[in-house]
Amino acid sequence: MNDKNYSPEYLRTFITRFFEKLGCPAGDAAAIADVFVRAELRGLPSHGMIRLKDHYQLWEAGRLNLRPDIRVVYETPATAVVDGDNGIGMLVATRAMQTAITKARKTGSGWVAVRNSNHFGIGSYYALMAVEADMIGLAMTNGNPLVAPANSVDRLLGTNPIAVAVPAGEEPPFVGDFSTTPIARGKLAVAAKKGEKVPFGYVIDKDGNPSDDPDILKKGGAMVPLGGDLAHGSHKGYALGAIVDILSGVLSGANFGPFVPPNLAYLPLPEEQVGKGMGHFFGAWRVDAFMPAEAFKARMDRWIKIFRNAKPVPGKKVLIPGDIEREAEERIAREGISILPAIQKEVKELADKLGIEFEVKD
Amino acid sequence: MNDKNYSPEYLRTFITRFFEKLGCPAGDAAAIADVFVRAELRGLPSHGMIRLKDHYQLWEAGRLNLRPDIRVVYETPATAVVDGDNGIGMLVATRAMQTAITKARKTGSGWVAVRNSNHFGIGSYYALMAVEADMIGLAMTNGNPLVAPANSVDRLLGTNPIAVAVPAGEEPPFVGDFSTTPIARGKLAVAAKKGEKVPFGYVIDKDGNPSDDPDILKKGGAMVPLGGDLAHGSHKGYALGAIVDILSGVLSGANFGPFVPPNLAYLPLPEEQVGKGMGHFFGAWRVDAFMPAEAFKARMDRWIKIFRNAKPVPGKKVLIPGDIEREAEERIAREGISILPAIQKEVKELADKLGIEFEVKD
Repeated sequence: MNDKNYSPEYLRTFITRFFEKLGCPAGDAAAIADVFVRAELRGLPSHGMIRLKDHYQLWEAGRLNLRPDIRVVYETPATAVVDGDNGIGMLVATRAMQTAITKARKTGSGWVAVRNSNHFGIGSYYALMAVEADMIGLAMTNGNPLVAPANSVDRLLGTNPIAVAVPAGEEPPFVGDFSTTPIARGKLAVAAKKGEKVPFGYVIDKDGNPSDDPDILKKGGAMVPLGGDLAHGSHKGYALGAIVDILSGVLSGANFGPFVPPNLAYLPLPEEQVGKGMGHFFGAWRVDAFMPAEAFKARMDRWIKIFRNAKPVPGKKVLIPGDIEREAEERIAREGISILPAIQKEVKELADKLGIEFEVKD
Repeated sequence: MNDKNYSPEYLRTFITRFFEKLGCPAGDAAAIADVFVRAELRGLPSHGMIRLKDHYQLWEAGRLNLRPDIRVVYETPATAVVDGDNGIGMLVATRAMQTAITKARKTGSGWVAVRNSNHFGIGSYYALMAVEADMIGLAMTNGNPLVAPANSVDRLLGTNPIAVAVPAGEEPPFVGDFSTTPIARGKLAVAAKKGEKVPFGYVIDKDGNPSDDPDILKKGGAMVPLGGDLAHGSHKGYALGAIVDILSGVLSGANFGPFVPPNLAYLPLPEEQVGKGMGHFFGAWRVDAFMPAEAFKARMDRWIKIFRNAKPVPGKKVLIPGDIEREAEERIAREGISILPAIQKEVKELADKLGIEFEVKD
């Protein structure tokens, strides 16, 4: 391991302590820490250590419940609604996905709509929980409104990601995890920080004109749905983001559309609420509800091999969704987790405030 | 009604007779006819009368089973696999969606993977069956490979559409029905016939270069996934199309990826088969499995009103997915169904061969 890097165990222990200090029971804090560390391991630092400060500030503002009573409030044999009691999203989501898996074990397929939750981190974490149980897993969430419907300039949808994970046999699982927009919001922030323009087809200005300004959200602009523009199917990306919002927000009793609360303490809560907190939606299909599990896995291996061995565009490599994150996970587990010096400093300051240790390496 | 147009009843009766003559039992033929007529009514003629000839030719080639034994071959309380016995896709799909709805009635949510089927027409037809039962409906299908994965030039995926329909109260249902590509294949055919170029971002040439040639599929090119290019998220469209293929093809025991058989008699069946026929996937969630149905519908009305009244791009109108097709359905039900003269002539020739009447109006 590179000695400038952190071991996953070190960070897991630290983050657990961090959330315990905020007031979480030990078991809950460990469950939350595991999602943060997994984001770092999978090479998705935008959902890792950098988010501790957001959580600290939301806690400080009294906007998170550290001892939530997460419970099923409505159910049938194959479905449930979970109220997260304003708990930390990673904890609520983990519990809800466990409920979906338990229901799928009994009926073949389980579905859980979640209300009164918060930002859940990486959706692939929950989808992969199903894979561990030989199921196909699905996780989605609505989010802070940034995206305008096709033909509109109003920010009504989040980047509303969808994660689907599928077990295979010899091959690693298929893991699709993607926002329903051309890019994640983070790419705009990075370009803005560097003073660079972004390609057209990511954002529009306040009048709906194509823009290459990564700061356009601050000027009344909006992100666009997957597809980019109408000629390239942005009405499809809009429909997809809308479906995520309806399942996560409308069906669960959470907030939806423009009412989804921001998970940043410096942004005020919307004055009007049409439900409780943020919404998620989880599903699991037992593969042996459709055919013997070994038969399915052999078919999935075949699928993966065919796609991986497809003829590439010259100089490129054809990937299976999840390849990049899995390769990152193998490498980072070996080399350790690298954290930007500025983030190390930020986390150290939080640790000092809470009276816990955090080693700055750089 | 415009006297150059056909009444829905006339076409429904004609198509029923047409499929009876091919050998379908009367009830089956009527079920099939209803899907064809609905496509015409919803303003989607690419899935209507123009497809009768394809079915005639597949029948002539012995590639369709007109008296299929469509049956559940594997099941749990919330899931089933249906074998379509190589029946006409519209019949198989209607039966499979009924099974999903029946299962949802009992367990809250029902899921049916279908193998050994054929082209099912418009996915929204099946998704809307669920809405009639106060459920959210989902329908998807794999298809004849035309689309290259991101970074590849091999045609491995169909345009793999997804349809989701959601019931509302005062408002009409939300109906998203979209291919996982920037455009449907039909748009390429139309541009080619007119001798026009298409925008970049729809197709690539055999080396993976962007192309504006609508005939590129005949020259070793491919369609691209939703997103258009990597910078605009075509890896997300690829993941989405792949998920449709996995649920419809891998999980059902149908063919998947490059093995999906073409539903055109002049295209040979692939030499290798990895399953049976074409695959579909259907789902239904009872809305009252999540909250009282009236509460859900009131929330959905609210959602629809907010999105419909969003601030438009100047000169544009913000739409709810399904608005265009519903408005077409209202207008066409009133004015009658207009059929291109060339298609009228084609259908008349088929009718003559089968010894049934078809009135040419133009």
